[in-house]
This record gives sequence, structure tokens and C-alpha cells, in this order.
Amino acid sequence: MTPLEFFRLKTREEVLSLYPRFPAVGAEDLELMDAVGQVLAQDLAAGEDVPSFTRASMDGYAVRAGDSFGATPGLPQYLAIRGSVSMGKEPQGVVGPGEAWRIATGGMLPKGATAVVMVEYTNEMPDGTLEVRRPVAPGENVMHPGEDVRAQDLLFPAGRRLRPQDIGLLAALGVTRVRVHQKPRVAVLSSGDEIVPITQKPPMGRVRDANAFLVAAQVTAGGGIPLLKGIVPDDQATLHAALAEALEGADLVLISGGSSVGARDLSLNAIQDLPGAEILVHGVAIRPGKPAILADIGGKPLLGLPGHPASAAVVMQVLGKPLLHHLAGLAENPSPWGGAVQARLSRNLAGATGREDFVRVRLRQEPDTLWAEPVLGPSGLLSPLVKSDGLVVIPLGVEGLFKGDPVTVQLFSE
Amino acid sequence: MTPLEFFRLKTREEVLSLYPRFPAVGAEDLELMDAVGQVLAQDLAAGEDVPSFTRASMDGYAVRAGDSFGATPGLPQYLAIRGSVSMGKEPQGVVGPGEAWRIATGGMLPKGATAVVMVEYTNEMPDGTLEVRRPVAPGENVMHPGEDVRAQDLLFPAGRRLRPQDIGLLAALGVTRVRVHQKPRVAVLSSGDEIVPITQKPPMGRVRDANAFLVAAQVTAGGGIPLLKGIVPDDQATLHAALAEALEGADLVLISGGSSVGARDLSLNAIQDLPGAEILVHGVAIRPGKPAILADIGGKPLLGLPGHPASAAVVMQVLGKPLLHHLAGLAENPSPWGGAVQARLSRNLAGATGREDFVRVRLRQEPDTLWAEPVLGPSGLLSPLVKSDGLVVIPLGVEGLFKGDPVTVQLFSE
Repeated sequence: MTPLEFFRLKTREEVLSLYPRFPAVGAEDLELMDAVGQVLAQDLAAGEDVPSFTRASMDGYAVRAGDSFGATPGLPQYLAIRGSVSMGKEPQGVVGPGEAWRIATGGMLPKGATAVVMVEYTNEMPDGTLEVRRPVAPGENVMHPGEDVRAQDLLFPAGRRLRPQDIGLLAALGVTRVRVHQKPRVAVLSSGDEIVPITQKPPMGRVRDANAFLVAAQVTAGGGIPLLKGIVPDDQATLHAALAEALEGADLVLISGGSSVGARDLSLNAIQDLPGAEILVHGVAIRPGKPAILADIGGKPLLGLPGHPASAAVVMQVLGKPLLHHLAGLAENPSPWGGAVQARLSRNLAGATGREDFVRVRLRQEPDTLWAEPVLGPSGLLSPLVKSDGLVVIPLGVEGLFKGDPVTVQLFSE
Repeated sequence: MTPLEFFRLKTREEVLSLYPRFPAVGAEDLELMDAVGQVLAQDLAAGEDVPSFTRASMDGYAVRAGDSFGATPGLPQYLAIRGSVSMGKEPQGVVGPGEAWRIATGGMLPKGATAVVMVEYTNEMPDGTLEVRRPVAPGENVMHPGEDVRAQDLLFPAGRRLRPQDIGLLAALGVTRVRVHQKPRVAVLSSGDEIVPITQKPPMGRVRDANAFLVAAQVTAGGGIPLLKGIVPDDQATLHAALAEALEGADLVLISGGSSVGARDLSLNAIQDLPGAEILVHGVAIRPGKPAILADIGGKPLLGLPGHPASAAVVMQVLGKPLLHHLAGLAENPSPWGGAVQARLSRNLAGATGREDFVRVRLRQEPDTLWAEPVLGPSGLLSPLVKSDGLVVIPLGVEGLFKGDPVTVQLFSE
């Protein structure tokens, strides 16, 4: 690799296209209720029909549909009530021609019956005769075996994140445990001589380790398990040892380095010296976040984050979260339609030459318009992030956006 | 309360307006990292300024801004390099007139200096002289004490759900524990003689308890802790005892009753007999979900869900989740702009007279249009829910919607 290639900025798309080289994390069997929101590690097929028998979907009377044909309020049909279906019991007997059985929603349809007349269109006479004022078609107000799912149907492919209704369907099928991907374990390190733990009052010239908590919280929100590995001083040997140790117990290592050129070089050297290390990306064509690093360390990904909190947060949002989802085994964007809203830009914005520009915005609803208001401020500050609802992208090659332009806001909360 | 008032359907808005009578659940102190996504139980103010000292926000040279005035590439200014700021150390000395100190991003500005000249616009000469090719204004490339937050500033009001960047800001302030609302504990019961546990192979006429898992998974997704309380037979005394026991250890009780009229009456009677019970709602003007019940049992809410899974899911989505959020202490809609997308309806839809109609839809992206395709099917089936991405509402008083109409899809995944 020549120095020139080495320092060429990669586009966001180019970085994302590198992720398939990293395998998804392992699988585990979980109790069904613990699998809400987890990612299936194997295809799931139905083991049986749901429902497994013919059921009433309304309160009323099980009848032979033909017996109701022609019934009107003026000229009702009259049937003989011959039984009642008990909930949860298999009815003993057959509904013969001209006969009806009482049945409640969910009850099992007796033999002979082909439909359920809703109670609203009937009247029970004192002599045990049923007046039917409206006809039913065969199969009406009835759920058939396999109507919900059929045995052998593919229910969900591997890589699907299980939603509450999916859990409900699996329960209906008697699936009590499911094989899902583990949550990726993500080591989070901070480097820099100026950083102290958040439990300390920093002496003059030092600051607390806010980045580790910001980044670890993004890991939690993205479905991973953060492992806070603490602060490493700006010393190449110590950094190297800390990274090697972090890689042992994690599926992904995040290190937020210093923002100074010297600190960045130190991180890069420490990463390059790890066994099996290959630097895949050194610099991304995004703003903020240009100094991001992606490395493959013997098959495990390492993402180097810029030191400025806003830059680290943007890199996590646009590169870190997709990497986390990939490692978690997600086959698709978890919410291809969610996580974004359409709004109008409240002021002109200039873009960054040669980079995708991610601008923090706050949303403000006016009666007719949802406005995206840029929240400007140096990348070293946290409060603009805290005041923002999401990011607006000024694409590569676009000089800027104008007040009133429609924009897509990628929401932080999703 | 007269029987007439009793049976009048309440609108969704009327039901939501009843929630403030229920107090939010109690608070607990959590480690900062455990508080991601939790709801603040008290206002939080900043204890100190962030940053606490003047810092460089770029790599370069600390100077007196006035010394750079007039500098151009053709006519640079020349300053004497007199020191270097060490990361994490308080610089000893003063930047005098005509002097410059090397400084890296995040370093503490030495006394005397008022700005940082970026390294890109400088050149170090062999004799220790600094060539400055561009002027800086006072304060340029510098973060000032309190620029991020000022001591005493209100950071977050009670009722806010903490996002990753909020956690980062709290870490910067040295906040290691935060007081948040506990997650609401939600008892989930199913009633019905036809229901068997999901671990059993149901005998003919019986079905597995899918609803409890569907509903409990919705509780998990909505930020609560579901407590699976099992199945109660259709017997008023047993139901009464089970509800009383469930209320003991829960902040909210959900019971998905049978869909038959008889089962509903039984549930209603069992609820009414609980000590301090007041039935607030018996029937809601929504479809599906009309048989929903809301009761106040000595200050705790009880929500009765319809027995059909699709009806239970819709009631949970439109009534249960907002109740859960209220109990969790959330001051506002957790994602006022998220959780919904704009789409166009793929076919005509008739509404339900006198009720808000919630139609399950699947989203399909075409090059220019996001289509919302209704997924029709009886409320007794689970698979239409599984195939859907969200709900479209046909409002009260609207007879129907037409193909191509713009609609808002409330996403299930949010």
C-alpha cells in the first residue's frame, strides 16, 4: 500500500461495504420472552397449523350455511337449537340439517356445521327454535385450520429482529426457546493524558472521560453490551497492551483517541502493531468525523473514533451503529422506514468540500411545517448534540442547502 | 352512573385524558451507564462549568490574537516560539507580545494567549521563529469555560428519557449516579377455559396462550417489565383472586379476556368486585379493540384487553403504550417526530361507523412512492400483524380513504 492510497479518504459507502468481512457474533438459545428485540440466528418454520381446528370468530350459532340461505328480517329461517359448544371442549355430536348449536368466539365448530350466524341476526324463541334473519356463506365467521399459518411455512428468516407480534405467533406455535445472536460485546477505551475518570475532580488542564460514556451509551442504544475499559495514557506500548487485552474479550473495540495529530498517530501506530492488524480505513469523507479509523485485527473490527465528542457521536451514528447491527446478525436495516422524518431547513447551510456533511438539527413543529433548525457549535462541545434531535446530511458534491429545502432528518432517538 | 352512561363508548382521546389520575412509579438511583433510555425522576442542573478552563479546539499555536492581525501568505507575521503546552498539564508561564506556544487540541491555553492559530496556516523556521500566514480573531479556535454548559444551568427536566448524548454530558459533569423512575412492573394475565400454556400441546378445542406473550413483548418494547401471571379459567371467584394477587406486585395489570360476550361479562364482574374498583371505561370507539376496559383499582390501573390477538395488539399500541409511558414518568411523547412515516394508500378503504379504524398496513417502497398496503384479515389471526409494519388510522367521522390518499403510518417497531 503506497502512502498515497493510505491517506485517501474513503466514502461512507466504501466503509460500509467493508463490513461483510467481519462474521456475525455467535448464537445462543433464549427463552421466548427474553428474545424480544433479538436477532434470529436461524430460519424458523411452523411446526403445525394455526389454528389447529375450525373455530368460531364471532359469538352466535353454528349452522349448515345452506340452512340460512334466503333468510331476511321479514322472512326469517327457523332452526332447531340442539346443543351448546363448551369453551375448550371438543363438541360431541353433529349439527344436522335444520339444526343449530350455540357457540362463543373461539369455540370449536361442531361436525356438520359450516358457518356461524352472528348472535345479532338471531332470536331464540321460548320453544328452543332459532330465528335467523340473515344468511351466512359457507366458512363465514369461522377460522379454518392453517388459516393463520400452515405447518412447514417459513415464518421468519435468520437475521430478523423479533417484534412483539412475532413473539406472539411463536407462542401460538408452542415455540418456547429460540436461537438468536448474542448481543455484541463492545470494548470502549479512551486515550489521552488529559483524561481522568468521571469519578474524579479533574485538576487544571484535565477533563473527565465523557466520550467513553457517550459512546458506550450509543452501544447500549444500538443493541450491544458496552465494556468500559477505562483510560489509556498517550504511550504507544501501554496503548498497544490495552488494545490487545480489550480484543480478547470483545467482538468489537472502540477507541476514542485524542483529537490532536500526535495522539492520532500514536493510536494508529499502536493499532498497526497488533497481531494480524490491517488498517482498512484511515480517514472518512464525512464532517465531522474525518479522522475515523477502521482496522481488521485478526478478524475482529476495531473502530477508532475522533476525540471531539460531536465527531465521535456522528461516527458512531453513521458507521458504528451499522457495524454493530452487522455484527449482531441483522440481515437488513432494522427500521428501513423509521428513524427519519422529512422536514424543511430553517436557514441556508454551506457544505464541506469533498465530504458528506452531517449537520446537527433540532426539530420545531409549526402548524404547517416541521422545521429542521441547525444547531451549530464546535465539535468539542456536547451541548449542541444534547439540543439536537438528529442529523441532516449535505451530500458529497453538493455545495450547500437553502432555507426551505426539504431535508431528511436521521433521528438520534431511533 | 346510569347504565346508559356506562355503556357509552369513550373515544381514544377521552381514555388518554384519564391517565393523569394514576401516579408515576417510584424512583431509584442508577449508575450512569445503567440509565441509558431511563426516565429522569428529578430536574438535573449543572454542578460546574464545562469546560472548566480555556482549551484549544485545534492543533496549532497559542498567541495573542492581535499579533496575527494583518498576516497574509505574502506578508506573514513572525512570532517567537517560547514554549509547548503539555496535554493534561497547566502551562507554567505567560505568552507575551510577539510570542507563541505550541498547543494540541484539548490543551489548556497559557496565560496571555487569546486565540489559537491553526497549524495549517503556520510554518516553523529553523531558528525557532513562527511564520503566521493568516490572522485569528480573539477567542478563535478556543473553547471557553462554561461554553458547553454553565454551573447552575438546568440540564434536563424530570420526565426526560436519557439519550446517549445526555449520558455523555452528565459524565463530563462528573455525575456518576442519576435518579430515574423504575420500569413499571406489568402483570399479564389471560383468561379463558380454552387457553393452555405454550409449553403444552393443546387438546382438541384448545389453543396456546399466544396473547400473553404478544402483550408481554409489547410491554418489554414499551419500557416495562412484564410479569407473566399465567392463565385463569372462566370462573369469577378464581379470576377475582388472581387479579387481586396480580395487583399486589404490579404497577399495572393487563388481562386479555375471552372475546365472547360471556367471558367479557365475567371479567367485568370480577374487576368490579375488587376493593376500591372503579370502572372508568367499558368500550372504546376504536376498531379493532372496542371491548377494552380501563379500571382504577385503589389507584392502580387495570387494562382489560380483547381476546382477539389483533385487537389486543391495537389496544396495547394506542392505549397501553401511552399508559405505560405515563406510569414510567415520561413527560412527553418519547419520539414526537419519530415512530411514523408518510405514505400513500394502495387501495380504497371503508371506515367503521362511529369508531376510529386502525388498519394494519405493510409498507412497500417504489422508486417515487412509499405505499401503505392494507393487510386485511380477521382479528383472530396473528399472521396479518406479523406481515404488517404499522397502523393507518381512518379518523372518526371519515367514511373511508381512497387509493393514493396520503396517510400517516404509525410504525410498530418504534
